[in-house]
Amino acid sequence: MNLKKIKKNIKVNDIKELDKANQNDITFIHSLKYKASLKTTKSKILITNKKLKNIIPKDIYIIEVQNVLLSISKVTSLFYPNALDEMFDKNVKILNKNKFVNLKLGQNILIGKNVKIGKNCVIGHNTIIESNVIIGDNCKIGNNVIIRNTVIGKNTVVLDGAIIGKKGFGFFPGKKINIRYPHIGAVIIGNNVEIGCNNTIDRGSISNTIIGDGTFLDNQVHIAHNVKIGKNCIITGQVGFAGSSSIGNRVMIGGQAGISGHLTIGDNVQIGGGSGVIKNIPSNTKVMGYPAKNIRNFLKENK
Amino acid sequence: MNLKKIKKNIKVNDIKELDKANQNDITFIHSLKYKASLKTTKSKILITNKKLKNIIPKDIYIIEVQNVLLSISKVTSLFYPNALDEMFDKNVKILNKNKFVNLKLGQNILIGKNVKIGKNCVIGHNTIIESNVIIGDNCKIGNNVIIRNTVIGKNTVVLDGAIIGKKGFGFFPGKKINIRYPHIGAVIIGNNVEIGCNNTIDRGSISNTIIGDGTFLDNQVHIAHNVKIGKNCIITGQVGFAGSSSIGNRVMIGGQAGISGHLTIGDNVQIGGGSGVIKNIPSNTKVMGYPAKNIRNFLKENK
Amino acid sequence: MNLKKIKKNIKVNDIKELDKANQNDITFIHSLKYKASLKTTKSKILITNKKLKNIIPKDIYIIEVQNVLLSISKVTSLFYPNALDEMFDKNVKILNKNKFVNLKLGQNILIGKNVKIGKNCVIGHNTIIESNVIIGDNCKIGNNVIIRNTVIGKNTVVLDGAIIGKKGFGFFPGKKINIRYPHIGAVIIGNNVEIGCNNTIDRGSISNTIIGDGTFLDNQVHIAHNVKIGKNCIITGQVGFAGSSSIGNRVMIGGQAGISGHLTIGDNVQIGGGSGVIKNIPSNTKVMGYPAKNIRNFLKENK
Repeated sequence: MNLKKIKKNIKVNDIKELDKANQNDITFIHSLKYKASLKTTKSKILITNKKLKNIIPKDIYIIEVQNVLLSISKVTSLFYPNALDEMFDKNVKILNKNKFVNLKLGQNILIGKNVKIGKNCVIGHNTIIESNVIIGDNCKIGNNVIIRNTVIGKNTVVLDGAIIGKKGFGFFPGKKINIRYPHIGAVIIGNNVEIGCNNTIDRGSISNTIIGDGTFLDNQVHIAHNVKIGKNCIITGQVGFAGSSSIGNRVMIGGQAGISGHLTIGDNVQIGGGSGVIKNIPSNTKVMGYPAKNIRNFLKENK
Repeated sequence: MNLKKIKKNIKVNDIKELDKANQNDITFIHSLKYKASLKTTKSKILITNKKLKNIIPKDIYIIEVQNVLLSISKVTSLFYPNALDEMFDKNVKILNKNKFVNLKLGQNILIGKNVKIGKNCVIGHNTIIESNVIIGDNCKIGNNVIIRNTVIGKNTVVLDGAIIGKKGFGFFPGKKINIRYPHIGAVIIGNNVEIGCNNTIDRGSISNTIIGDGTFLDNQVHIAHNVKIGKNCIITGQVGFAGSSSIGNRVMIGGQAGISGHLTIGDNVQIGGGSGVIKNIPSNTKVMGYPAKNIRNFLKENK
Repeated sequence: MNLKKIKKNIKVNDIKELDKANQNDITFIHSLKYKASLKTTKSKILITNKKLKNIIPKDIYIIEVQNVLLSISKVTSLFYPNALDEMFDKNVKILNKNKFVNLKLGQNILIGKNVKIGKNCVIGHNTIIESNVIIGDNCKIGNNVIIRNTVIGKNTVVLDGAIIGKKGFGFFPGKKINIRYPHIGAVIIGNNVEIGCNNTIDRGSISNTIIGDGTFLDNQVHIAHNVKIGKNCIITGQVGFAGSSSIGNRVMIGGQAGISGHLTIGDNVQIGGGSGVIKNIPSNTKVMGYPAKNIRNFLKENK
């Protein structure tokens, strides 16, 4: 890295995305897609590459590197040295019911340190809730569930076998060994949400994976790291989301549909079952097909 | 509801579908699709809407409502007040082998009240079988399986991680809170069936979800509520069925195919891998594609 | 079977595929696809059908049968009489940490006989490792994992809920009862591999299922029996492989893509998300679509 231009005494607290970073956080930009956030970021020190360095505001120190993502990975590891070791929480113990208010419990539940569970919750058999997880009032958690790195709102249901908060599928492919990207984000699940059986919802890399209030997910849904799903969405069985896509409010997605990475899906969008979405979809649109197109055209062409 | 026309002293036992209802059961019709069953239903009291009320036989009392499904939901809740609380069975205990005949057991098995298990069965580690489940002779249940609201025949195999009998993905979407539809149906699994690893098979809403004799399901198959699958079908990996579809006998379905809801697939149908079936398929037909069409046309068009 | 031509005193050790069989193993051929291996096989006794018997080298004894696969199934059952009973390992016990070097353990781990675990491994809660499994140094196994019939190399990670080494979905369909094909192969997983959450990886039938060094699998991937995946591949979420396909090195496969059975995918192939691959793909090719075609054509046709 080219650190020449940086003054000696900058104290850096953390690494964060452009729009989340504070004055003492280091940030980064690796794609023109995030250009707009350059104007509003509070960060004063930024990692980027030769191609993008000319668009950086002059009051920000630039660390120019060849591979921005690889550098972020290394810097993140400095701030979070244990992020890559994450596998399971050794600190879990059999849950002590007396520590919580009006909790209905199954058997063999393992629970970590500093877990907060609201009033009137239900937790099923063999479920594992790792340290620092927060669960709101009136939540129902099923059997064989694994929850880590997660904050859950009120009145939310997590059905059997769901795995929430695992590190995402992010790494730099190597010839022999893939270098894992440290994932330090959380999963933030809103109020009145339902997570289906055997869902897999990965934690965010640097930002968070988010499921909005009132959204319902059916069985066997896969949600990759950094995906944001809005409020009151209905996601049916076996749907999959690649990393970092952003889904609006009141979106309905039919079974087995797939959403590619880094897309923006608007509000009130309806996506037919089996669709493969590979580009952004504006609000109030109905699409179907692979690749997904206007549903009328899809049905007309396939009469 | 408009209850004016109903005589005072009708005693209603239960709520059932047109073809299952007895004289003292309340029934309903919300779509012309079920018109034929009006002639044969034994029920004398029926919930329907303005549009359909004119086709109801004159000897049946009509309860006219705006939203038939919402009314069914409310009436069902009256008959089954706990149906919406279902999450896990608190009454399970470590299985007592001596209560069953020639049972081979793994460790940490939890079993509910009134469970019936036939002769010569095998049950793997960490498996949970909730109250009132019935399992026939010579069945083999794997590890980490969860079974509830289910009746299983003889000689049937359930592989590791399958989740059978959970409430289906049925609800009325609300602006903040989705109102869950009470699911009171069962899963009925025949003889000589095989259920693959990590399958999810939901219980029926009012009728049952059914898997016929001799049918084999591969891994990661998802079967929604009220689906009926016939005998001797072969369903390969990651196939998904939306709610209420009816599949004939000897149907073969290739990997990752999806079947939309409320469809009828005939006998001896073959559905190519990856297909998306969005309309009924007559018996003895081979289809492939998305949407699925005659397989010859699909292959010709895609040479 | 026609055994007339066989000399009395041939001692047969095992049943193996053409290229794996030694002089005292019985082998078989049921498709011209495997013709090349006839020249190099060491086996001197072979099961085949009328159609193929004329291409068998003259120094090999031929057992002519009507249905080669059914006969293999029967012969395999003679050599492996318990292969069809496989359901779960009754010999597992709570793991004794002192028998292994520097092992970090979760709770409720069940472990079979003769399991070998290398140095510095990590094993999560509720995980089951059946008898004879071999795990190399520095491996990390998550929670709720089930591993049987498997050999794992060094530095490999298996995430929560993965089920590895179950018998494959292979059987002869019958009118009432499907006759299961005995599966006696293993799963061989290389070094520096990552297996995602809720993956299902089936053991081979007679040969093995193989995952090469440095290959990473995302969540909810399904790999059927006898699939061979090369080195440094990247397989994203919900991808499925039907039986016996062979995937080269450095292959990248997008989410929800499906690979049909018995195909050969070359090195450096890139397969777009959602694709359905139904024929062989030469090395260094990018494909997408259903059925998969050259990615440029797919994108041009779908502008």
